[in-house]
Amino acid sequence: MSDSPLSIGIDFGGTSVKIAVVDRSHIIDHAPPIATQDFEGPEQLIEAMVRAVEDLGARHPGIKAIGVGMPGFVNFEKGIVYGLTNVKNWENIPLKTILSEKLGLPVVVDNDANCMAFAEWKCGAGQGFEHVVFVSLGTGVGGAVIANGQMIRGAMHGAGEIGQTSIDYQGRMGHYGNVGALEEYVGNREIATAAHEAYIAAGIQKSLEDCTPAALAAAAHAGDPIALAQWDSVARMLATAAMNFCWLLNPQAIVIGGGVARSGELLFKPFNRYLASQLSGPFIDHLAVSPAAFGHEAGAIGAAAMAREIA
Amino acid sequence: MSDSPLSIGIDFGGTSVKIAVVDRSHIIDHAPPIATQDFEGPEQLIEAMVRAVEDLGARHPGIKAIGVGMPGFVNFEKGIVYGLTNVKNWENIPLKTILSEKLGLPVVVDNDANCMAFAEWKCGAGQGFEHVVFVSLGTGVGGAVIANGQMIRGAMHGAGEIGQTSIDYQGRMGHYGNVGALEEYVGNREIATAAHEAYIAAGIQKSLEDCTPAALAAAAHAGDPIALAQWDSVARMLATAAMNFCWLLNPQAIVIGGGVARSGELLFKPFNRYLASQLSGPFIDHLAVSPAAFGHEAGAIGAAAMAREIA
Repeated sequence: MSDSPLSIGIDFGGTSVKIAVVDRSHIIDHAPPIATQDFEGPEQLIEAMVRAVEDLGARHPGIKAIGVGMPGFVNFEKGIVYGLTNVKNWENIPLKTILSEKLGLPVVVDNDANCMAFAEWKCGAGQGFEHVVFVSLGTGVGGAVIANGQMIRGAMHGAGEIGQTSIDYQGRMGHYGNVGALEEYVGNREIATAAHEAYIAAGIQKSLEDCTPAALAAAAHAGDPIALAQWDSVARMLATAAMNFCWLLNPQAIVIGGGVARSGELLFKPFNRYLASQLSGPFIDHLAVSPAAFGHEAGAIGAAAMAREIA
Repeated sequence: MSDSPLSIGIDFGGTSVKIAVVDRSHIIDHAPPIATQDFEGPEQLIEAMVRAVEDLGARHPGIKAIGVGMPGFVNFEKGIVYGLTNVKNWENIPLKTILSEKLGLPVVVDNDANCMAFAEWKCGAGQGFEHVVFVSLGTGVGGAVIANGQMIRGAMHGAGEIGQTSIDYQGRMGHYGNVGALEEYVGNREIATAAHEAYIAAGIQKSLEDCTPAALAAAAHAGDPIALAQWDSVARMLATAAMNFCWLLNPQAIVIGGGVARSGELLFKPFNRYLASQLSGPFIDHLAVSPAAFGHEAGAIGAAAMAREIA
């Protein structure tokens, strides 16, 4: 048995709810995934989560606390889920109170991006730093901010919405009327669409499905100049947003996670070049830019790490 | 005599060094301004500052600490001035150590924007908030960030460089190679230049000197449609940057100071409209946007307020 208290990390996704027993930064056991859409609303789904945690608790008697990462808007202090992006009927659910009453353990609830960032900060690529900006690149673009050794959640727990920040005051309209929203440029779909258009403009037949970030990475590795130019463009736009975070917050580390970050040097090499060329010494000389250490498990590991801090 | 400890606030400017005795948020006495450019380098100028503080101290025996706001790059923790924007020969000067040894009082040294923000946060328009973004609009555009009830200085004390953040990834080149730097759009000179060009395009003869923000404000108040359109444009660009700070940090307050902010509703009315139209509820419903409470005295009052906290 470990000296460190075990905790439960719950990664609540639009497709499935994954529940893991975490020992420091390692998942040592997990429950069978719960299919989110099999449930009409929160009540039954929470019951299923409770049963899964109880089953795991029976196998691991040392569990001290539970952390939950939710894909939506959460009041961290009160542990209330105000609403979820892709799951119906979750409105104003006091998840922290419900779970802690049913399970008799301390519970912490935060949004999923904060949980992923927490994993990177406490056990991953941002470890040891006091000032970290975490960016998650996928269909949606999100993130989180750590400053002065604290998670910055802001007035209404909304901080870290990196995908909604603007890179062009005359640019594309974001979901909230926010002109130039980064997500409209470097989200998975937007990367694929831009690549598709570039191929068509060059007279090359490609389906949109053959322009996903993964496909574009494969093409770029094979030397395809259009794919390489697309990665350069993504890096340039992302570097503009990152530069903004640097001038504003002067972080020690920028950690980039999510599927798009798996393209590795195709993204990071031009990204670092664009970033360095737009910052002065004190902002770039001490800045570490890293891919996230954790992949799909980041949410559960981060939620469990948050739980361990309150246990 | 007041219950609150008196402190000295020093506003070190490129033209003059202003030294004030501050009681809470009020300047109760001050030394004659010291002409910055009359001195070849730091040694003599620091001597003049020391004598002025000693004179003030002789008149006000209750002084407990000294705060200095510097127009440049400062290591807040160590109190070292790395370099100043418009003053020569100030390089790696351990100002905090020098002043505290010569004067026998605790000294705090920070950059001027942080001092102004501190004044607004502790005694002005940002009072009572835990999360504040301060923007200073002038020839240069600067600012500061307060989050979780703390000043955010970042890894190398560089945080808050709001004028260097980008509003256009394909835009104008900033001083540091930073493309789309806000300062290149809403700095005093840039506002005047844009207005001048708009008048010329409309066939109206105006000198560049007649297009300063103050002149543009007067013209707009008189109903001049070109001047009104210019304020709308400035507000739109500034709102893009402000929107970025909101999505990233979810502040409770945005406080805007500096000369340009004195245009009042000409700026604030369209600014608030552009900002509100680009934020979702949790970001805008609880956000206070205010002009700074302090004018020219903000730097000295803020430096003195910082000093009071360490006294």
